[in-house]
Amino acid sequence: MDMRPIGVFDSGLGGLTAVHSLWKILPEENLIYFGDTARVPYGGRSKETILKYARQDVRFLRSFDLKAILIACGTVTTTSLDTLQTENDLPIVGVVEPTCRRALLVTKTKKVGMIATLASVRSGAYEATLRRLDPTVEVICKPCPLFVPLVENGRFRRGDIVIETVAREYLEPLKETGIDTLILGCTHYPLLTEIIGDIMGPGVTLVSAGEESAFELKRMLKARNLRADEDRQGESEFYVSDRAEDFENIASVFLQENLRHTARRIDIDKY
Amino acid sequence: MDMRPIGVFDSGLGGLTAVHSLWKILPEENLIYFGDTARVPYGGRSKETILKYARQDVRFLRSFDLKAILIACGTVTTTSLDTLQTENDLPIVGVVEPTCRRALLVTKTKKVGMIATLASVRSGAYEATLRRLDPTVEVICKPCPLFVPLVENGRFRRGDIVIETVAREYLEPLKETGIDTLILGCTHYPLLTEIIGDIMGPGVTLVSAGEESAFELKRMLKARNLRADEDRQGESEFYVSDRAEDFENIASVFLQENLRHTARRIDIDKY
Repeated sequence: MDMRPIGVFDSGLGGLTAVHSLWKILPEENLIYFGDTARVPYGGRSKETILKYARQDVRFLRSFDLKAILIACGTVTTTSLDTLQTENDLPIVGVVEPTCRRALLVTKTKKVGMIATLASVRSGAYEATLRRLDPTVEVICKPCPLFVPLVENGRFRRGDIVIETVAREYLEPLKETGIDTLILGCTHYPLLTEIIGDIMGPGVTLVSAGEESAFELKRMLKARNLRADEDRQGESEFYVSDRAEDFENIASVFLQENLRHTARRIDIDKY
Repeated sequence: MDMRPIGVFDSGLGGLTAVHSLWKILPEENLIYFGDTARVPYGGRSKETILKYARQDVRFLRSFDLKAILIACGTVTTTSLDTLQTENDLPIVGVVEPTCRRALLVTKTKKVGMIATLASVRSGAYEATLRRLDPTVEVICKPCPLFVPLVENGRFRRGDIVIETVAREYLEPLKETGIDTLILGCTHYPLLTEIIGDIMGPGVTLVSAGEESAFELKRMLKARNLRADEDRQGESEFYVSDRAEDFENIASVFLQENLRHTARRIDIDKY
């Protein structure tokens, strides 16, 4: 039994959808979440800058006595996971590989779709990982740049003509390619599960990055005998690098429940 | 006669609408434009973060020998103009005061509307400036957070149900207040002139921040005897902090003409 908390970080608040999954899958664990809201988004920055930021994020999280870290951010995972694992003496789990493994388990036609931000699509990391795990898979990627701002402005519900129109434009060409599995390669997208599911239809299985990495974390903790007492209820703390005032409202959207937690603001440049 | 260039910067490429105005109003001047595309948007960030970024933007621009700077960004003007003016020994013009003066010249009912990003509305700077210039004016502000991402994704044309739906939701309550003048308090919004004009109707005059600040800059250069030779054709250089590859296409949208210029990428974290 190990009661130390798990650190979770993202370039912003989208990674809270991974916290939502962790609460369901590992409800007994304590979590420390850091969202680098002052420097979001990481996507357009150079590899070196992203690594620099990710190192600071990890140093801040490790000011707590952690047992593991989940990188709830596609950009950091694809650019910095290996280096961070080498530099740190605790287990670090990213979002890409668990998600790709799951997608390959699910697909029958070996045609897998992937939607994400422009930066994540450009990085080619999901594509490369899927091909490394199964060289016969066909991968079709589609950037959906308006999904993040629309979700952040509360437009993710069925019946909203704005998100439905944008989603149809992005997804209908993807549906026509005949994929049977679709990776939601951005932490914001689980909120669009209904909208995306309606358009893709029952023949396409949606695989969410946050959820798969939570399962991966559970397997890893179990294998290393690091799990907390399953009878208890874990606690979560939240930290951000920009104004904390709106955290509660925005976080409630990503966590899909009313949040009583507030966030504390820290100066990430000091780490 | 002063042939040194004018520095122009914005959190992204929206400030190019001010360049469009400068080309018309001061065609003889050389311009150095910087768009902080790696850290766009500034709109949702805290005052301290915006000031830190704005200082870096000015430091980069001042690596050239400039005669003046135009802050083509409502968010930076409303949060950081005073500080930047105090810290720098060259004239710096923002977008707020010239725009407010123009709006007060235009309004007959003394009811002025203002639309902008959340940060600009929160700063209260347009409201405060309008009231300082005319204490009897009534100001109604409305944040329109989705306008920037929609414009940047090409959704600013008549007949697009997505932008028309969002614009109606934002603007119809504003129209009902009975304003006769509407300040477009964000550099992206001139591209929405048709959409906004359709909803507000002929009884409401639109005042664009970029255009008014270009006129202000012209007056200031003349008063200080800093203008370039009027017979010449000025040249413009463009710098961005994110990938420069897409610059030409996006810039052509904001500049409303085909652009032959390319942009160079710089590392803004070094400034």
